[in-house]
Amino acid sequence: MLIIGENISVVAKAVGEAIKERDPKPIVNLAKAQKEAGAHYIDVNIGPATKKGEDLMQWMVKIIQDETGLPLALDTKNISAIEAGLEVHKGTAMINSVTGDQDKLDALMPLASKYNAKIIGIALTDKGVPPDVDSRLEIVMNIVSSAMEHGVPLEDLYLDPIALPVAVLQEQVYNCIEALKVFKQIQELMGLPEQPKSTIGLSNISQSSPKELKSLINRTMLVILLSHGLDSAIIDPMDKDLMDSVKTFDILNNKTLYAHSYLD
Amino acid sequence: MLIIGENISVVAKAVGEAIKERDPKPIVNLAKAQKEAGAHYIDVNIGPATKKGEDLMQWMVKIIQDETGLPLALDTKNISAIEAGLEVHKGTAMINSVTGDQDKLDALMPLASKYNAKIIGIALTDKGVPPDVDSRLEIVMNIVSSAMEHGVPLEDLYLDPIALPVAVLQEQVYNCIEALKVFKQIQELMGLPEQPKSTIGLSNISQSSPKELKSLINRTMLVILLSHGLDSAIIDPMDKDLMDSVKTFDILNNKTLYAHSYLD
Repeated sequence: MLIIGENISVVAKAVGEAIKERDPKPIVNLAKAQKEAGAHYIDVNIGPATKKGEDLMQWMVKIIQDETGLPLALDTKNISAIEAGLEVHKGTAMINSVTGDQDKLDALMPLASKYNAKIIGIALTDKGVPPDVDSRLEIVMNIVSSAMEHGVPLEDLYLDPIALPVAVLQEQVYNCIEALKVFKQIQELMGLPEQPKSTIGLSNISQSSPKELKSLINRTMLVILLSHGLDSAIIDPMDKDLMDSVKTFDILNNKTLYAHSYLD
Repeated sequence: MLIIGENISVVAKAVGEAIKERDPKPIVNLAKAQKEAGAHYIDVNIGPATKKGEDLMQWMVKIIQDETGLPLALDTKNISAIEAGLEVHKGTAMINSVTGDQDKLDALMPLASKYNAKIIGIALTDKGVPPDVDSRLEIVMNIVSSAMEHGVPLEDLYLDPIALPVAVLQEQVYNCIEALKVFKQIQELMGLPEQPKSTIGLSNISQSSPKELKSLINRTMLVILLSHGLDSAIIDPMDKDLMDSVKTFDILNNKTLYAHSYLD
């Protein structure tokens, strides 16, 4: 499974302050720690970034890639900041995330194509939370079509069925699981040349739950989704219990070789 | 999910000694503790029980049912001890377990029919561990046919795809998961009037693994199997992390209502 580390986000206090003061150290350390913990990509969430978002994203990309060498998932609603980040990014970037709104698709798919970036396409639009599995499918079908129109390879497209807080919208969690199962059939459903991949922004699921339940809820949800073929996840790789669950899943499914020391 | 508590087994030292001295206390206490922890059935494994197995099983059934009121899964290779247990059992007993060997089927299916007992049918024969998914399917198809011949309702039949130690036979674990998926299709495959249920003897999976890994391996395997529709499991209900995983699975699949206190 492709692991995208979620920890560098402007909403985290230490990251927000480091961004304000352009202090690279806390950001770089967090990136290194996530790499150490097993992240393959580092998500860089700079928020709306309406003012000078381009400069900020380029600075973030440079300081993190210089120290870790990892590819990044660029995460902001500021589209020109995304492009600025792509300009200086080395290797294959990800754009996180692309909703099913036509204006977003028309702006971001050409960027993905131009810079050979992967795309996280989420089952969400400006209209709000999709109420059921079918509405999720409808949204991602539109994303898939847009990717094909703009020549983005479907193997570079990661569809996200949208995890919502189980404490608030419990039945939407079941819909998320069911939607993943349907997304895994989308090649057949749409007669596509390739099967798009899947991912999940996991931590949403335990938002609004008490702190002591979060890791349990996150890791149980992740094992459920992995059982249904999830290809990738945006997670906190420094949650050891979560990462141990992923490693154990891989062992039980014969994807990595068992040794008594497999957690080390 | 139907939870069958595994803890009363002659191989557990305290249980073995209590049996030898016909001391009901340790056995009854273990049964009560499992009920408290959430077990719906209590497995009563008296081993081969070649000498006076009938008396022993009847004694076990009486002392446990008198104190807990729970139904029991009768677990011994001594067939006449099974029948003796069924004679005094109140409510719907289970017979654990019935292999695919014809002599076993011919002896045990009539008992299940006579005493309205549920059956755990395991994908195993005297010939040893089935090497792949197809051989597991072949064995349980024979069990299903025998149940139908003897008038055992298929909803009372629990098929077990056989969990083997991941530390020793890693690829057999993958086969176990795949076999469950196939068993869940067996109504369609065999054109049956009803879908048989499924169960798993879970703890086998972590046999030979270090103690500190056992619970993690057990609970990850259980969530994988639950994701594929497992109906029941023979587990240690006193493993709180395991039971918390089951509760969280039910929450995420909208089977029980979320509350911040759902683990209590």
